[in-house]
Amino acid sequence: MNLVTLCQLSYGMYVVASVKDGKFNGQVANTVFQVTSEPPTIAVSIHQDNLTHEYIQSSRVFTVSILTEEAPIKFIGLFGFKSGRQVDKFKETKYKIGVTGAPIVLDYTSGYLEAEVINQVDAGTHTIFIGRVVEAETISAAKPMTYDCYHDIKKGKAPKTAPTYIKE
Amino acid sequence: MNLVTLCQLSYGMYVVASVKDGKFNGQVANTVFQVTSEPPTIAVSIHQDNLTHEYIQSSRVFTVSILTEEAPIKFIGLFGFKSGRQVDKFKETKYKIGVTGAPIVLDYTSGYLEAEVINQVDAGTHTIFIGRVVEAETISAAKPMTYDCYHDIKKGKAPKTAPTYIKE
Repeated sequence: MNLVTLCQLSYGMYVVASVKDGKFNGQVANTVFQVTSEPPTIAVSIHQDNLTHEYIQSSRVFTVSILTEEAPIKFIGLFGFKSGRQVDKFKETKYKIGVTGAPIVLDYTSGYLEAEVINQVDAGTHTIFIGRVVEAETISAAKPMTYDCYHDIKKGKAPKTAPTYIKE
Repeated sequence: MNLVTLCQLSYGMYVVASVKDGKFNGQVANTVFQVTSEPPTIAVSIHQDNLTHEYIQSSRVFTVSILTEEAPIKFIGLFGFKSGRQVDKFKETKYKIGVTGAPIVLDYTSGYLEAEVINQVDAGTHTIFIGRVVEAETISAAKPMTYDCYHDIKKGKAPKTAPTYIKE
């Protein structure tokens, strides 16, 4: 079995954010995908140790900001490798509050989705949250970043809590 | 709400195949993603009307062939727009039978995964099958096809049973 084959799966790069008791948090996720078109439903896999998991679990809403190729490693580092338990990720980030009450990251974002959780699946280390899309807007025509681009061009790595983490 | 924003989500292109009573079927899917790395687990969203859905439901196993950029529209048409109820998709396709007993499409494939279903979620029109990866092999270094490439370069469309289908 050659698990490196899993690296051939293609993904985008997103910031998934949520809210709890008036506090905001968000994290980088690559596993956002559309489940059904009618009604529009999306899913995301989030590590159960992550603060964003706790927030989604509590508020039952999340937003997805679609990152563009312009997103610098520093920005991805803030949302992907730091915990909202240590830093306020929204302090120097441009965002707005969506119809769900959750924050929507607007920096390096070509569009966003807002969703209300209608189901969730315990997948061991991760939870798959399934959400009905309640808002969706396009911001720019900038090219969305792919996970491939993040690895190949930006030389990015996956944190230990990523579904795609590989021990080195 | 601008649902076209959903088109900014990034995906790969895969043939998901399964077996039932010694018969094989497979279909194109773009929503394959890794759920957890330890143990390696993947998920796929399949339309409940599709024959492949019936086969996975019955055998509890499926394979994922990762399509390369070389896959021609004709090949994608066979696996993506025709039903195994009308044609034997494996008749002129190169494949092998995997450890799960399900067929693995080898044409235009850079690597493949085999999975045993450990959980499934009814998502309305679609089912999300969650599978433990039991086999994974890399076949070539050919570039995996992205959904973006399929749309932009190959001018491909989504069938009505795709999670990403948009009414025109």
